[in-house]
Amino acid sequence: MLNIQIEKTNQPKQKPEPEELVFGAVFTDHMFVMDYEISQGWHNPKIVPYQPITLEPSAMVFHYGQEMFEGMKAYKGVDGRVLLFRPEKNIERTNKTNDRICIPQIDEDDMLQAIKALVDIDKDWIPNAGGTALYIRPFIIATDPYLGVRPSNTYKFMVIACPVGAYYKEGINPVKIWVETEYVRAVPGGVGEAKTGGNYAASIKAQMKAKERGYTQVLWLDGVERKYVEEVGTMNVFFKINGEIITPELTGSILAGVTRNSVIELLNAWGERVVERRITIDEIYEAHKAGILEEVFGTGTAAVISPVGELNYRGDMITINNNEIGALSQKIYDTITGLQTGAIKDEFGWTVEV
Amino acid sequence: MLNIQIEKTNQPKQKPEPEELVFGAVFTDHMFVMDYEISQGWHNPKIVPYQPITLEPSAMVFHYGQEMFEGMKAYKGVDGRVLLFRPEKNIERTNKTNDRICIPQIDEDDMLQAIKALVDIDKDWIPNAGGTALYIRPFIIATDPYLGVRPSNTYKFMVIACPVGAYYKEGINPVKIWVETEYVRAVPGGVGEAKTGGNYAASIKAQMKAKERGYTQVLWLDGVERKYVEEVGTMNVFFKINGEIITPELTGSILAGVTRNSVIELLNAWGERVVERRITIDEIYEAHKAGILEEVFGTGTAAVISPVGELNYRGDMITINNNEIGALSQKIYDTITGLQTGAIKDEFGWTVEV
Repeated sequence: MLNIQIEKTNQPKQKPEPEELVFGAVFTDHMFVMDYEISQGWHNPKIVPYQPITLEPSAMVFHYGQEMFEGMKAYKGVDGRVLLFRPEKNIERTNKTNDRICIPQIDEDDMLQAIKALVDIDKDWIPNAGGTALYIRPFIIATDPYLGVRPSNTYKFMVIACPVGAYYKEGINPVKIWVETEYVRAVPGGVGEAKTGGNYAASIKAQMKAKERGYTQVLWLDGVERKYVEEVGTMNVFFKINGEIITPELTGSILAGVTRNSVIELLNAWGERVVERRITIDEIYEAHKAGILEEVFGTGTAAVISPVGELNYRGDMITINNNEIGALSQKIYDTITGLQTGAIKDEFGWTVEV
Repeated sequence: MLNIQIEKTNQPKQKPEPEELVFGAVFTDHMFVMDYEISQGWHNPKIVPYQPITLEPSAMVFHYGQEMFEGMKAYKGVDGRVLLFRPEKNIERTNKTNDRICIPQIDEDDMLQAIKALVDIDKDWIPNAGGTALYIRPFIIATDPYLGVRPSNTYKFMVIACPVGAYYKEGINPVKIWVETEYVRAVPGGVGEAKTGGNYAASIKAQMKAKERGYTQVLWLDGVERKYVEEVGTMNVFFKINGEIITPELTGSILAGVTRNSVIELLNAWGERVVERRITIDEIYEAHKAGILEEVFGTGTAAVISPVGELNYRGDMITINNNEIGALSQKIYDTITGLQTGAIKDEFGWTVEV
């Protein structure tokens, strides 16, 4: 149990109007900060007014990318309760990422307490219009002022939060996706399943290339055989083919998404046929030719469900479900967002009240 | 030509004694800083007292690893001149890295001017004992306070510097290297040839594993077939087999080292047989069995030449050149360090006077 020192702001900021909400640009009044050093472990937990941080220019995070983050949301429930969605999954993944990039483990209960404490102090910042939420960003950075390549001896764990509207401005409309054949996101033995900055820096170039061609995001193929589907942009991906729902299995280069896992559990509960296995881009295109590619959608915390309306693989464009959101995609979206806000009774035990 | 504003420190720090020099821990009195924003490009170049920097906690560098760095050295020449070694190669590579991770290009002349200006103002910090130098660290970080994944709109370019002793405490003694078979450093289509933080964060786990087993560093195999040799630790690698010198060719996942290039040019000038090609770890072991694996050495700015005395591949240990530095390795080391300090006449045009 952390003994969190709290310093409240005496200059609360103006909250944005619901219609002005964008993703990730406006932050709440406070932030959580906790330090690590070898002799003390994680210590000095505190909530302070949201403010800049000061680091040595030699801090390892600036040079060797030893950093991790998580993304989750708090919802203003229909009954006024404040709900988190499966925070234990993000916390579990935090320690998996930490293990991969040699950041010290963080106590799971402490991390949940930190998140809850920040959400609670800034609960008036949680918007309640449909599709809005308080996005929560826990992250850890290596702060050691040292230029040799090794794990840092000191770290900062922080939690910041921002009220957000929908991630994609198009809303839940289907997006156009470019199948990337030149650049690779990750490979087994690498850090693809860790939520660490380098994966995202590496992805920007392909994303820009797709945008220039009029596509919203890229679909990543595996880095070894360059034919297996991995992720779409920063989301996991699902295909409904002839009534069966397929998502790439977690082979080490794919992020184990919380929404991905929720979708699988939901489909199982509904008695749908859902399978995790490797699937090639050729199989997707063959299914389309055969008229049995019914739906394609991405899953992630930011967008929840993002239907794919078009794929472009080496110039071969296909349109999925007449460029409309599929019935199953819509049902999953409605159910997960309903569970998140408490509008649908949570029989999974997924929501955690702050 | 930059108009660099200079603010000199009025509290010069105590310089470390030559025998106290370690790598990357003590910094000089000043630093160079320049900002970027879209409307102004790179602007506001200045040299200020070495000091911490302040960023928003949402600055993109903390979350998405959009960051790059270079490493180079300044030497106190035997005749008192201050020499840089092939800085144009580092500057050229800076823009290659920038291109890969979507950081704006930086003018090559401006970057050289910035480096020279900092070295000049802190020239009394350059140590002159053998093997010592002023290590120079130019780096760029994404500073945009925004949590969406896209290129940052603002950046900071900085140059910091530290007087350094030898990178490896063991000096130029041969090191023990663990051939890594579980973790992968990079893959074609990824960012392995870019000098960006994520590559280094991804490498730490294997490095720690090697250290626990009593090895100094790892030898990386390619991420696709897991058999071709790529790099050793954070260095390029060379093998002398039956009189021929072989180094892995640059296939996109290997950093194009400045020392690597200098070694190749030197060997060519000496009329040695040197070839850049893919080489498997099995070929290395077979050469050893046949008694024709004569020398193995890593090359990099920090260590210059680092002989490999032992390799361990899946438990199969081999000793190279009786665990002694080879004649060719020694000759290359002596020549490059001689050129760097001006002790040997520079007929290559590699040294640049500050």
